[in-house]
Amino acid sequence: MKVKDYLPINLIAFIAFGFVMINSAFSQNLNSLYLETSEKIVRRALVDQIGYQMLGELCEIGPRLSGSDQSIKAIHWAKKKMEYLGFDKVWLQPAMVPKWIRGDFESARIVNSKTLNGRALEIAAFGGSVGTDRDGITAEVVSVNNFDELNSIGNSIKGKIVFFNRALDLGETNTFSGYGNAVNQRTQGAIEAAKYGAAAVLVRSVTTKHDKVPHVGVMYYVDSLPKIPSAAIGYQDADFLYEAIRKEPSLKINVRLSCKTFPDVQSYNVIGELIGTEKPNEVIVVGGHFDSWDKGCGAHDDGAGCIQSMEVLDLFNRLNIKPKRTVRCVFFINEENGVRGAIGYANYADTSKEIHYAAIESDRGAFTPRGFYVDADSAVIQKIESWLPYLQKARIEWVRKGGSGVDISFIKNIKAKIGYVPDDQRYMDVHHSANDTFDTVHPRELELGSAAMAILTFLLSEEGIE
Amino acid sequence: MKVKDYLPINLIAFIAFGFVMINSAFSQNLNSLYLETSEKIVRRALVDQIGYQMLGELCEIGPRLSGSDQSIKAIHWAKKKMEYLGFDKVWLQPAMVPKWIRGDFESARIVNSKTLNGRALEIAAFGGSVGTDRDGITAEVVSVNNFDELNSIGNSIKGKIVFFNRALDLGETNTFSGYGNAVNQRTQGAIEAAKYGAAAVLVRSVTTKHDKVPHVGVMYYVDSLPKIPSAAIGYQDADFLYEAIRKEPSLKINVRLSCKTFPDVQSYNVIGELIGTEKPNEVIVVGGHFDSWDKGCGAHDDGAGCIQSMEVLDLFNRLNIKPKRTVRCVFFINEENGVRGAIGYANYADTSKEIHYAAIESDRGAFTPRGFYVDADSAVIQKIESWLPYLQKARIEWVRKGGSGVDISFIKNIKAKIGYVPDDQRYMDVHHSANDTFDTVHPRELELGSAAMAILTFLLSEEGIE
Repeated sequence: MKVKDYLPINLIAFIAFGFVMINSAFSQNLNSLYLETSEKIVRRALVDQIGYQMLGELCEIGPRLSGSDQSIKAIHWAKKKMEYLGFDKVWLQPAMVPKWIRGDFESARIVNSKTLNGRALEIAAFGGSVGTDRDGITAEVVSVNNFDELNSIGNSIKGKIVFFNRALDLGETNTFSGYGNAVNQRTQGAIEAAKYGAAAVLVRSVTTKHDKVPHVGVMYYVDSLPKIPSAAIGYQDADFLYEAIRKEPSLKINVRLSCKTFPDVQSYNVIGELIGTEKPNEVIVVGGHFDSWDKGCGAHDDGAGCIQSMEVLDLFNRLNIKPKRTVRCVFFINEENGVRGAIGYANYADTSKEIHYAAIESDRGAFTPRGFYVDADSAVIQKIESWLPYLQKARIEWVRKGGSGVDISFIKNIKAKIGYVPDDQRYMDVHHSANDTFDTVHPRELELGSAAMAILTFLLSEEGIE
Repeated sequence: MKVKDYLPINLIAFIAFGFVMINSAFSQNLNSLYLETSEKIVRRALVDQIGYQMLGELCEIGPRLSGSDQSIKAIHWAKKKMEYLGFDKVWLQPAMVPKWIRGDFESARIVNSKTLNGRALEIAAFGGSVGTDRDGITAEVVSVNNFDELNSIGNSIKGKIVFFNRALDLGETNTFSGYGNAVNQRTQGAIEAAKYGAAAVLVRSVTTKHDKVPHVGVMYYVDSLPKIPSAAIGYQDADFLYEAIRKEPSLKINVRLSCKTFPDVQSYNVIGELIGTEKPNEVIVVGGHFDSWDKGCGAHDDGAGCIQSMEVLDLFNRLNIKPKRTVRCVFFINEENGVRGAIGYANYADTSKEIHYAAIESDRGAFTPRGFYVDADSAVIQKIESWLPYLQKARIEWVRKGGSGVDISFIKNIKAKIGYVPDDQRYMDVHHSANDTFDTVHPRELELGSAAMAILTFLLSEEGIE
């Protein structure tokens, strides 16, 4: 039966049976509309590459660490860009954020060695770390692989530098799992080492790329223990240091860090929206975090996620799609070291008169689409999974129950929180490091992500998940 | 019900019912063996990165155009490598191949222009093209987008250079479709233009990357028409040339090509195998093509496919997997411009006493796994699809009916021909060009491909597809 033959009969039936037929005729039309719209979205994203161009502009500004001048410059760039793109409403949502600055010196070198004196080691302080004085800390280095090993040697590390040496396990197919299994050395290492009187902490970079580049990220202290400096060491220099202290345990290194925490400063989430034509009070959030670490330019983490979110709305505009529900992109500030933007937005969302209907977060890099994780009840997940024929146009292969993303996780009253999942094999090469630059972003991979998110947003807006 | 509670009951049942239980108990054991083996394969591939190292060695040799000295050097490297890896049997299978050489001059520049005289254009002759004399061809340029346009202007192109200007359509999600829709300008352009007396042909590079690099590939002639030179022009210079002739239609360009075809020369497929422990006469082929174009070093096309095939056998050796059926890797020579290696191997396969059971080809780049195309009857495809729980360990998302690969397609008597399908978004950036170098290969993406092929080979060997 050809479609051409079928439609007139349907039309006759529609005339004959009137109202009863509306639903089925409509839903049949909607399906072909969904397919057609999905194809249009993908094509426009891939051909125009406007998101890619915008990410290039953003990366020109430089890194966007919360509280930095560059982050404020980027926030104003984003607001202007959303206005330029003709969103119905654009505003800044204030949030106070931490201000931590790396400062003007940061170095490590080997001293007190028979043969290696003066050898520099590539290090970078973790975000939130205290610094040293200008002379730095000079001490012996003790290597451990985990907190159990640390506890087993206990007080013998007093006054020494603890070198957490455990690498990301390359054997994990999922690089986020590999990362998750190694990263407590960075986040908790200074706390654990301080319990035994350590002078400082160095941590092997948590990365899949075995180069010299240190990979940073947030670290924590507790008030009950001394705050000791904590820094990443590049993977290759971690290898070097491990060999050096194995051969010469009395070797010392000098670590100098000028990093410092200042009082909180004013910052903002950047928000833009297209107002829904039928249900303006029901809001679909698409977002990423706008802050980045101060190395590289946060191209993947998470410039890409923000730009993709903004491009969802821009694709709707380019294709003259008027969403039934309000579609709002949110650039959350301060995900990396405080999540103040996310908490602020969630407070707003949970207390406003709007209904937060669904939220999609992109914060896993600008790589080719693989799937969506959905944090919702199983009926909703099933409904979203039934949209795979449309989502596959942008190379989404699966919809699974799973965690969405840090920033949208704080919103309480919402039907579905969704995480966009691109391929993850290259993400940890660049994550939190000077490697995270625009040239590592592939235009087609980025744009397919924008398209995947736009198709899902379109379906959430038009079809809904009830 | 926990697994621990379950197994003893099964064991009791096994003891009580004896033989009747063997099958189900066995298949249960086999499933966990499959899962465990799949996980081990993925882990070893990702941790050891031996395939990646081997591809690096291979790329050091340089490009491997059929008939070139470097291709012979690479063939001997491969034979030695397979012997070093301890394969049960390694041999060279002779094949006569074309010998086409680019030669010592290749250039295009603008002449007879008011403002652009001397401007060079980045070009590269297509494989098989005739050359020009040392002075080259100097003629006006006529731009067309397709053969219909060419036919519509017909004899007015006599003595002129036809510039085929149609770009790969970026809006196609599948870059192979985009490529397929543009590439007839390269393969057939010189034939079509010669019908109207054109002097030469330039073709906009068929690529997703809009840089200066010409993308080459094979082109054809027919004996009944004059053979005119045919070359790729880099994407950016195609833009430039289009604008230049739009503004100044009388502008001429001078094209000089020293390329030439020589008599066929001796070459070889490189073949290595692990002999099956139970069904040595049933052969599973894993392969790629070993020749490449003479730009870049054929890292993705198809050094990667060969190395992945070799690594399937090496992973079996590293993990002490003794396949029931014979597993044979074949490096086919001359896929790019003659498929002589593939035809030779198919002749051997279809006339030998061996049973060719299945074949897997990898010739779509070294990117993250997505799926397998299977050319077989639907019961076989269904059977292979039922292995997705194992294949997913290496990020294979789907098994679909589809074309396998050029080299294995010539084998007639075989149950399944399978094409490995990695992500395709970046492939056409590098394909057939100086961009196809080792630094564009990501170790984890390459290794997941090796692992995916190894898991499938393991299941074909152990479980079979009857």
